[in-house]
Amino acid sequence: MQYISTKLTKCMDISSPIVVAPMAFASTASLISAVTSAGAFGFFGAGFDTSEQLVNTLRAIRRDLNVPPDAPLPVGVGFISWILKLTEGSDDPRLVRVLEVLPKAIWFAFGDDLGDYIAQVRVYDGKRNFKTLIYVIVNSIEEALRATNEWKVDALVVQGIEAGGHGGAKVPPLLQLLSAVIAAVPEDGPLILAAGGIATGAQIASLLTLGASGVVLGTRFLFTHESAYSSVRKDILVKAGLNATARGLMFDEVGRTMGWPDGIDGRAIANGIWRDHDEGLGHDERLRRFDESSARGESERLVIWAGVGVGLTDKIQSAEEVVRELHQDALQALQRTSTLLV
Amino acid sequence: MQYISTKLTKCMDISSPIVVAPMAFASTASLISAVTSAGAFGFFGAGFDTSEQLVNTLRAIRRDLNVPPDAPLPVGVGFISWILKLTEGSDDPRLVRVLEVLPKAIWFAFGDDLGDYIAQVRVYDGKRNFKTLIYVIVNSIEEALRATNEWKVDALVVQGIEAGGHGGAKVPPLLQLLSAVIAAVPEDGPLILAAGGIATGAQIASLLTLGASGVVLGTRFLFTHESAYSSVRKDILVKAGLNATARGLMFDEVGRTMGWPDGIDGRAIANGIWRDHDEGLGHDERLRRFDESSARGESERLVIWAGVGVGLTDKIQSAEEVVRELHQDALQALQRTSTLLV
Repeated sequence: MQYISTKLTKCMDISSPIVVAPMAFASTASLISAVTSAGAFGFFGAGFDTSEQLVNTLRAIRRDLNVPPDAPLPVGVGFISWILKLTEGSDDPRLVRVLEVLPKAIWFAFGDDLGDYIAQVRVYDGKRNFKTLIYVIVNSIEEALRATNEWKVDALVVQGIEAGGHGGAKVPPLLQLLSAVIAAVPEDGPLILAAGGIATGAQIASLLTLGASGVVLGTRFLFTHESAYSSVRKDILVKAGLNATARGLMFDEVGRTMGWPDGIDGRAIANGIWRDHDEGLGHDERLRRFDESSARGESERLVIWAGVGVGLTDKIQSAEEVVRELHQDALQALQRTSTLLV
Repeated sequence: MQYISTKLTKCMDISSPIVVAPMAFASTASLISAVTSAGAFGFFGAGFDTSEQLVNTLRAIRRDLNVPPDAPLPVGVGFISWILKLTEGSDDPRLVRVLEVLPKAIWFAFGDDLGDYIAQVRVYDGKRNFKTLIYVIVNSIEEALRATNEWKVDALVVQGIEAGGHGGAKVPPLLQLLSAVIAAVPEDGPLILAAGGIATGAQIASLLTLGASGVVLGTRFLFTHESAYSSVRKDILVKAGLNATARGLMFDEVGRTMGWPDGIDGRAIANGIWRDHDEGLGHDERLRRFDESSARGESERLVIWAGVGVGLTDKIQSAEEVVRELHQDALQALQRTSTLLV
């Protein structure tokens, strides 16, 4: 396989500039192991997992990848900051336990205190001979500059409005946001990764051409045998078109996952949950309908996080196949591009 | 200058794969002449101009470009279909008068009867030895397939939600819509151009890598000495950021330019017009405030059509400089891309 060589692939020692986003309720050890084996870099989504669950997952990945016990683990863990705030003050603080297992990277998002957790990682690393790479999601130029100058992170995940799961409610589309962030951040600053609505190899090539050194895909990896999504959810994803998703807090309200900072909401399949809200039903009535749907085992009101790119994929594959296909298609698009210069 | 060679540049006999969108109230003969001289292709926006005004504009461009009277004019004219419907039934039908002057291309958008006008051009061309190239805007896969299979147009302008001026109210962002249209349209089908929010050379390179054979820019050319926008409007554009615009029909309501088909609205600078609507003010009160603002000569309620890309430009240049800068930056991004393959 021909490599695609970017700042990201060199820094992470991978062959494809593809990063799999942490996805609570969808990441699995086998998904992360598979994408890593195929040449990409995977983040496991910590979600609400306990430290014991997280450590067990990372140990399973270590076994899958056959990495010796003391060697760094070439995968990452993604934490949602407002959930970390709940757990770090509890009798099960998770960050240190995860750092002990030597993941190569940690990803922080969605909280007012990312800087505190980043400082904690730096202090921890200062006492040992290892540097954890720090990724953060940014939804604006201001956030990108803060992460670059104040927190001195290693990678900015520049996330457009197209992204599935959570992100800024009022973010510009990726093509504009990424252009603006690249212009604002110094050349020798953090790695810049593009995220949101990416589902094809040609899109990856396109974003590398725009100046990203890598891309982050989430939704695309829900379409895998290894994702934890049920077959009912996967069927819905396969059938979804380009206009199948909507953003808002209605999905978190009925799923009882509220706690997001101001200005953050989520994109999911626009199903009955969205229509109940759109029709102006009150909070209690929407929860009642959601709970009744759940109790009846209906698929009409499942919370299915997904980005706009959901409309670009229509089959379930193995995670390894997905990485290889994305890589080949990106390569082909990059090669075709070179024919434009005469 | 090194050429960028695509299906579009070959078909249109231009050196940069850049097309300037027709912009009613902003296009001028000197703008179109300048971009054509610089190697791009320009469409003049017919708007509500009479046939005499349009013919005079095209004659001025012919003089500027020094094109002999009987030779095809290497520029285009863009018609808004619902306005054509008003004028073609009047005592000043415009389409035939414009075709007589031999513009190389005609662009149709925003009406339920695009097919009728396209047929009219084909019939007209059938009686002479000249083929007018037909461009249409498409906002969905379905529209792209209809224009390809039923109307057999020459070029699809695939317009994402980022676009300034008018477009589909519920269109996906460009990166996803363009990917989907390229996948749906046969390889030997019409030219595929990307439109919406494009303001930089790296974005152009990026969209060529994604598979477009050219790009359409509108807002970017409002930032020129040649555009008909007033200096007050240009100052507002220069200061606008990535979140400065909003979509809706509120701008047309107060500007009395209603007549758009279902599902079409417009993106403009989100100023007092937008806030009046957002605050829930009634139709009459919003018109009253707009008219009073106009009478007082205030800038707070000007209708200033602009795409999301407005946030990526912060200076006024000549139209020729803009084309040359975009071309050079696109070239540089394409050349950098070739270094990714090792």
